[in-house]
Amino acid sequence: MAGVSGSAPAVTVRIVAVGDELLEGRTSDTNSTRIQRALGSHAVAVRDIAVVHDRLGDVAAALDRTRPGDIVFVCGGLGSTGDDITREAIAAWADVALEWRQDVAERLAAEYARRGIVRSLEGDKQPLLPAGCEPVDNPLGTAPGLVGELRGRRVAVLPGVPQELEAMLPGTLAALQRQGALPTARPTRLWRLAQMAELAVAHLTEPVRERYRDLHWSWWLVDWGVDLRLGAGPDRADELEAAAAELDALLDDLVYAREMIDLPRVVQDHMLVRGTTLAVAESCTGGMVGAAITGQDGSSGYFRGGVVSYADRIKVDRAGVDPATLAAHGAVSRPVAEEMAQGVRARFGADYALAVTGIAGPGGGTPDKPVGTTWIALAGSDALVAGRYRFSGDRERNRRLATMAALDMVRRALVGAPIVDADRLTWGVPE
Amino acid sequence: MAGVSGSAPAVTVRIVAVGDELLEGRTSDTNSTRIQRALGSHAVAVRDIAVVHDRLGDVAAALDRTRPGDIVFVCGGLGSTGDDITREAIAAWADVALEWRQDVAERLAAEYARRGIVRSLEGDKQPLLPAGCEPVDNPLGTAPGLVGELRGRRVAVLPGVPQELEAMLPGTLAALQRQGALPTARPTRLWRLAQMAELAVAHLTEPVRERYRDLHWSWWLVDWGVDLRLGAGPDRADELEAAAAELDALLDDLVYAREMIDLPRVVQDHMLVRGTTLAVAESCTGGMVGAAITGQDGSSGYFRGGVVSYADRIKVDRAGVDPATLAAHGAVSRPVAEEMAQGVRARFGADYALAVTGIAGPGGGTPDKPVGTTWIALAGSDALVAGRYRFSGDRERNRRLATMAALDMVRRALVGAPIVDADRLTWGVPE
Repeated sequence: MAGVSGSAPAVTVRIVAVGDELLEGRTSDTNSTRIQRALGSHAVAVRDIAVVHDRLGDVAAALDRTRPGDIVFVCGGLGSTGDDITREAIAAWADVALEWRQDVAERLAAEYARRGIVRSLEGDKQPLLPAGCEPVDNPLGTAPGLVGELRGRRVAVLPGVPQELEAMLPGTLAALQRQGALPTARPTRLWRLAQMAELAVAHLTEPVRERYRDLHWSWWLVDWGVDLRLGAGPDRADELEAAAAELDALLDDLVYAREMIDLPRVVQDHMLVRGTTLAVAESCTGGMVGAAITGQDGSSGYFRGGVVSYADRIKVDRAGVDPATLAAHGAVSRPVAEEMAQGVRARFGADYALAVTGIAGPGGGTPDKPVGTTWIALAGSDALVAGRYRFSGDRERNRRLATMAALDMVRRALVGAPIVDADRLTWGVPE
Repeated sequence: MAGVSGSAPAVTVRIVAVGDELLEGRTSDTNSTRIQRALGSHAVAVRDIAVVHDRLGDVAAALDRTRPGDIVFVCGGLGSTGDDITREAIAAWADVALEWRQDVAERLAAEYARRGIVRSLEGDKQPLLPAGCEPVDNPLGTAPGLVGELRGRRVAVLPGVPQELEAMLPGTLAALQRQGALPTARPTRLWRLAQMAELAVAHLTEPVRERYRDLHWSWWLVDWGVDLRLGAGPDRADELEAAAAELDALLDDLVYAREMIDLPRVVQDHMLVRGTTLAVAESCTGGMVGAAITGQDGSSGYFRGGVVSYADRIKVDRAGVDPATLAAHGAVSRPVAEEMAQGVRARFGADYALAVTGIAGPGGGTPDKPVGTTWIALAGSDALVAGRYRFSGDRERNRRLATMAALDMVRRALVGAPIVDADRLTWGVPE
């Protein structure tokens, strides 16, 4: 169970997502989640989302359902083509004129020139803003956003391209704050936890939440585990500090980051600071650990590479596993994981090597080693550790959880934490 | 530009997604997209989506905005906990009683017994259905779905867990059809195209679309390229056949599948049928090709494994690249890609080996080899082919496109198509 508890926010936010592609099976609306996360530290509550077609009447009907006093985010339909009708729809709904903004036009002309685009601004809709609205700069694209008061609502309009929307959210929230519509951000704290289920986070933090009921608590599942957030009103900064100190002590080495960086980046930063190198030997993950590592710009500074030893013969030939070990213990076992790690460490000339071998499913399970059973080992110059996990997802989820557990094992080793912690890591049952 | 063109559908569909987690930044609503895709071949149009909290009043308000004659999908809030209020909300809105369904209760008891769960059905809300509704079986979970006519709308209720919803969609659509609410599925055809941009598909198919304007055309970007769909009303089956024949000739070997299977599965099926084996050598993709291959159940039947040769030293030591080749041509070059493929093929004892080396970005580009430049090579027993691509995305997108191009190169080799086709493949510019 993910959850939210604590003090109730005051300002109501509504989101209108505009775009035929969101209603024709082409793409899901992820922009609303981006907006919600950006608002995370502000005392607001998102009431609902309406997803509508690029049609004047449909956008107007969605805006009609909002209330004076609401903050309304509208995303999509801000480009320069005929399909993009959001500007017109909002102006018509609010019964205000679209005004040509010379400042926006000049910025647009400069941006076209910078990109070497030969294009006249005549007929370009992008410098047209509903009267009374303030433009918001678009650092990645051309269509500016806008923020303004219309029919008693504070309306913020953003483009539908997720990267552009994401890049414009800080400027948009700043404009809303300047206009006095958005409550000041609450002081917040973040704890990012790998290898923990939401239920485990809820359970573990319950005593602290009981003591600090007036703080705003939230936790949810993200790509690399669970994010726990704690927020406080301006008059509760001391309480926040006290609760944060308790959580720091409680969560301790379960925390891989206290800011919005991902687990592979945390591992990379630890490796680069120490000047150490890493190699991997992957069986059930088939390359996912290497893919996660190399997804980070700069990973070539510490990552040497690896072996995907999918076939047993390859575990012997390319990762240095003794055929007798394979025969005696099977591919999914502590000795094979350890030999994979040691073999690849030697062959790749790396300081550390990580090995993963498991049964991802759906087939291949036995009563002794059910689907989800996974051994992960880490070899260093003077240490060799291994842990067994029992994941309970489908093939894809088991592989993702194994990737997460493997990266977290490296992190734990580098910060001097115990490698496996049966009492607290809940995504598997280490032996 | 993705697109839809052709004949207009008749029945209006609305979607109501219920769940606090969709409004608190925890998760995006992807269920609506699943429903839209399942409806793809039916003559219906999705009008809008409302995302609301797990609150009786909010669900009722969203239902109030639908119209008699609509098909209304409601997803989420069907479980057995106190948060799950969708059943109650719908019954209250429609002013009908919640009736205890003994058939549902018995199925539930059997399911609990099968899973070894000791649990009384007393107080369990799951067998409670609004009067007049028909249950829909949930093959993955316990909460059944339901379909029925309420206040003139045809309402279908599904759970919020995406896998459960996906598994229940066929049964739900079948129930809607039995009840006469959902138009019979139009005959449709599907062409799945790797390595093509939406704009290229639009351009290439334009002459055929012009000739068959009364058919329903749609195409959109998916994980492994672009899906092109063609649908026809029951009286236009001949036209559909004629257009499909033209498209088959036009698209030819660009098509990797004509049914909903993914590119890695297509490669796997070709490999297994031929009894051939594959190994990979990955540089910029860092394991993504292996991860995509091993994401398929059954891949151990043909995939031997691979080397992630991220550091240049590893390309020499573990993939058999000649240091002189590296020095003369650089890591991102045809000779290095070819030697990687040949080296790994020999070392892994595979029939085929695939190699990928490129500059994913953001750094590392030069005027000669800008970011996105990628060489892919395929070595077989008596053939060695290679192609250069120039992808224009960010790091993650360039890596994904390289993975797609690599898998498609294997497919093309196995079906005897030219490996690179500069005139038609648009996600890169092969040399």
